Amino acid sequence: MQKKDIPASVLARLPRYYRYARELFGNDVLRISSTELAAMMDVTASQIRQDLSHIGQFGQQGYGYNIKDLYSGLGEVLGLTDGFSVVIIGMSEQGAALAVSPMFTYRGIKLRGLFDYDASIGREINGLTVMPIFTLKDFCAENIIDIAVLCVPKEQAAEACAMAINASISAIWNLTGEELRPDRASENVIIQNLNLSDRFFALCASLNQAKEAVKKHEL
Amino acid sequence: MQKKDIPASVLARLPRYYRYARELFGNDVLRISSTELAAMMDVTASQIRQDLSHIGQFGQQGYGYNIKDLYSGLGEVLGLTDGFSVVIIGMSEQGAALAVSPMFTYRGIKLRGLFDYDASIGREINGLTVMPIFTLKDFCAENIIDIAVLCVPKEQAAEACAMAINASISAIWNLTGEELRPDRASENVIIQNLNLSDRFFALCASLNQAKEAVKKHEL
Repeated sequence: MQKKDIPASVLARLPRYYRYARELFGNDVLRISSTELAAMMDVTASQIRQDLSHIGQFGQQGYGYNIKDLYSGLGEVLGLTDGFSVVIIGMSEQGAALAVSPMFTYRGIKLRGLFDYDASIGREINGLTVMPIFTLKDFCAENIIDIAVLCVPKEQAAEACAMAINASISAIWNLTGEELRPDRASENVIIQNLNLSDRFFALCASLNQAKEAVKKHEL
Repeated sequence: MQKKDIPASVLARLPRYYRYARELFGNDVLRISSTELAAMMDVTASQIRQDLSHIGQFGQQGYGYNIKDLYSGLGEVLGLTDGFSVVIIGMSEQGAALAVSPMFTYRGIKLRGLFDYDASIGREINGLTVMPIFTLKDFCAENIIDIAVLCVPKEQAAEACAMAINASISAIWNLTGEELRPDRASENVIIQNLNLSDRFFALCASLNQAKEAVKKHEL
């Protein structure tokens, strides 16, 4: 099983493959060809073959992928067997919504703590009491925390990120909308920015393209 | 200005360029080279040149990009000049969080309506009263709505999508976690699935890779 040096672009696509493998496994499908999977997922068969070649060998040429092996192999690469522990920093509406989402309560992920600057401290959400952010470091000294999810307002993103790094958290999922750029302090920390507005405006761009095409057609 | 047939992968990157162009414009920067921009954005200069070549000409070889032109050109391609109108369907915690997020209240986007199946009907969020989903079609007959944001539970995703299509909405941003695949009914509709769990598990995969690398180093 080769698992090192998988390009970030491929890693980003693996969760979707994992979902499809899980669905197929749940439906008792034993094997699937890259062509069949490509049709289901609306990507090319060659992309599938290339992407999955980074993970390992899950089938014999001409026989398709072994679904069970693919499913467990992908789960392993995604770290689902490790049971990563998570804290959410920032109990904005978005942070509170994530705290009750099923996302952090299945497939081995453990939501361990909720932190905020002031407004929500003491509030109970999903069985966890919101703690003041200045206690994060002590909390992380007593609990192994792998990932911090940042949901603070943009203006506090850099500070909250620094506090997470200072608490020895290894990975940061930044949903604040403020882009965090890697620097010296964070060189051994994995930072992933997910900018929801960017994703929404990408949809706007597609819609705009489609409207322009219609306009041209009508002229 | 050539704006047609921009590949989806390029469209997806444009909002980030737009953010950087806006920031530079706000800081009174007049020109920037692809090399300088590449260093800021942590991508390659050749990717920037390729991506932006789809949008138009924003500079002379050797003089860098004209920031003002780039900023307004990107805004145009993103459809920000069109002022798209949006409804949110599903007042889960996530839907309610989006309803109060600044995302839909700036840069020309207009949040026009909130819909739900039952629990939240009549509730007031951000100045809008949550309406029953069965009134969506009538609402869209009286108001031009471009985009529906789906925040219903997974099990209702397909049904809510069908209702939006039936109400002649042109684009659907699906945040339910259930993947909506294009079919006959939706062939003229733009559907973009954003699966937050996938994005989170991509971070887990990167973290897992880093941990494996450390383990190997220690052996």
